[in-house]
Amino acid sequence: MFTYQTKIHLHDTDAAGRLFFANQLKIVHDAYETLLETISFGFADIIREHNFFLPIVQCEAEYKKPLFVGDVIEIQITVAKIGQTSFVFAYKLFNAAGELVGTAKTVHVTVSDETGEKVPLPDALRDKVRALYNQDN
Amino acid sequence: MFTYQTKIHLHDTDAAGRLFFANQLKIVHDAYETLLETISFGFADIIREHNFFLPIVQCEAEYKKPLFVGDVIEIQITVAKIGQTSFVFAYKLFNAAGELVGTAKTVHVTVSDETGEKVPLPDALRDKVRALYNQDN
Amino acid sequence: MFTYQTKIHLHDTDAAGRLFFANQLKIVHDAYETLLETISFGFADIIREHNFFLPIVQCEAEYKKPLFVGDVIEIQITVAKIGQTSFVFAYKLFNAAGELVGTAKTVHVTVSDETGEKVPLPDALRDKVRALYNQDN
Amino acid sequence: MFTYQTKIHLHDTDAAGRLFFANQLKIVHDAYETLLETISFGFADIIREHNFFLPIVQCEAEYKKPLFVGDVIEIQITVAKIGQTSFVFAYKLFNAAGELVGTAKTVHVTVSDETGEKVPLPDALRDKVRALYNQDN
Repeated sequence: MFTYQTKIHLHDTDAAGRLFFANQLKIVHDAYETLLETISFGFADIIREHNFFLPIVQCEAEYKKPLFVGDVIEIQITVAKIGQTSFVFAYKLFNAAGELVGTAKTVHVTVSDETGEKVPLPDALRDKVRALYNQDN
Repeated sequence: MFTYQTKIHLHDTDAAGRLFFANQLKIVHDAYETLLETISFGFADIIREHNFFLPIVQCEAEYKKPLFVGDVIEIQITVAKIGQTSFVFAYKLFNAAGELVGTAKTVHVTVSDETGEKVPLPDALRDKVRALYNQDN
Repeated sequence: MFTYQTKIHLHDTDAAGRLFFANQLKIVHDAYETLLETISFGFADIIREHNFFLPIVQCEAEYKKPLFVGDVIEIQITVAKIGQTSFVFAYKLFNAAGELVGTAKTVHVTVSDETGEKVPLPDALRDKVRALYNQDN
Repeated sequence: MFTYQTKIHLHDTDAAGRLFFANQLKIVHDAYETLLETISFGFADIIREHNFFLPIVQCEAEYKKPLFVGDVIEIQITVAKIGQTSFVFAYKLFNAAGELVGTAKTVHVTVSDETGEKVPLPDALRDKVRALYNQDN
């Protein structure tokens, strides 16, 4: 399973003193970007070299415990689903005490750079995400 | 129904050229903040004067069409559910052509400032959100 | 003089309860984007139709009074300087009581889309920014 | 000298394909937060345990080369100045090739939690920042 460590920064929090809810999704995306780099599909490569976008078409998140500035967290990412035209990543966030503080899901499709229409996942990408899926399940 | 107009700013977008997905949730929260002000529960008041927090415990979003810098959008907010201890807001985002470009939901609870534990919605807040619910349904 | 009204949103603040300093620059950029639209150089146009970028090469900001969630602010923008290859925008932020709460400056150049090198300001853009400068000075 | 490594994330960039200028200041603040933790003045401690705020009253930044999603950067922080009532941090950002890509400065003061007025730097904080200054100069 892929894990990612990070810390809650001041700009992630808001005047209620906790992590601003949308920033949990920003942070899990940081983890997802790092995972993509490990399978040679970093965003720099996708944007510069590939003819597709990888937009998120759906997401969800749960918040189980508040997170505060300075909190160290670990994010565990698994591939929850992989099909011909989409894949789903699932995230679990743990605090330094090992408690589950939040979860998230992101649903991804590939879209042609030229037409803006959905296209099947490129083979190389699908194979690599499927390999992660097989590891996780 | 409460509506909120805004525009996609450059910092809302990312290098893929579109609205960064988590920023759709940031933007619907802007709309929600404005709605709360209209029922006299603006965040400034909640943080300074009340003894509760109003955290989001769950959220979800869908992305139907890409949004680009400069796009004018309208957000329609309705109260999808109101109970003794939580309420749910639903959001629809429309572009200038009137097309539905995205949706979101946020689930809110009240938490005691002192104990950090969930508490029933304060009467004044529940009554006002229920009034919105009755308007919408 | 160009003015822009906005409000401090929850995600603009941090756990110290005030506007996070870098977000003042984010907010003045929102004002600047709106100004550019009024002279037909909105970012959507620049990114899609023009062969130059308009990067900021220098910025500065001062913070005179704290800003809190819900605060309504007005930003006054003037062109502080316009040359052959760069221009400088100056910003003053006022709260609802009319007090000066902050200032900012942004220095802009044009860079060729193809070579990444600095190029003289395109005539049409320079003329329009100069017209603003003449209004302001 | 204190150094901090990080990476440009997708949400740090904008539709022009590069780091959004205000996010450079956000990122140097991440570095500054980490430095404060090393001298036992992490923001979590300041917000929870101390009776002062540490607001930034002035900042500036320069942008020498564009930064793109995925770029690894190193930030070097030095104490540029330390007085009775304020200190100044200076930042240099380097890309993976070791090129200077940007700089920043932040001017900090201490403000009483109760009165909101400027107060002298607390002794413990001033001593620790001065020790860093002596190391750097």
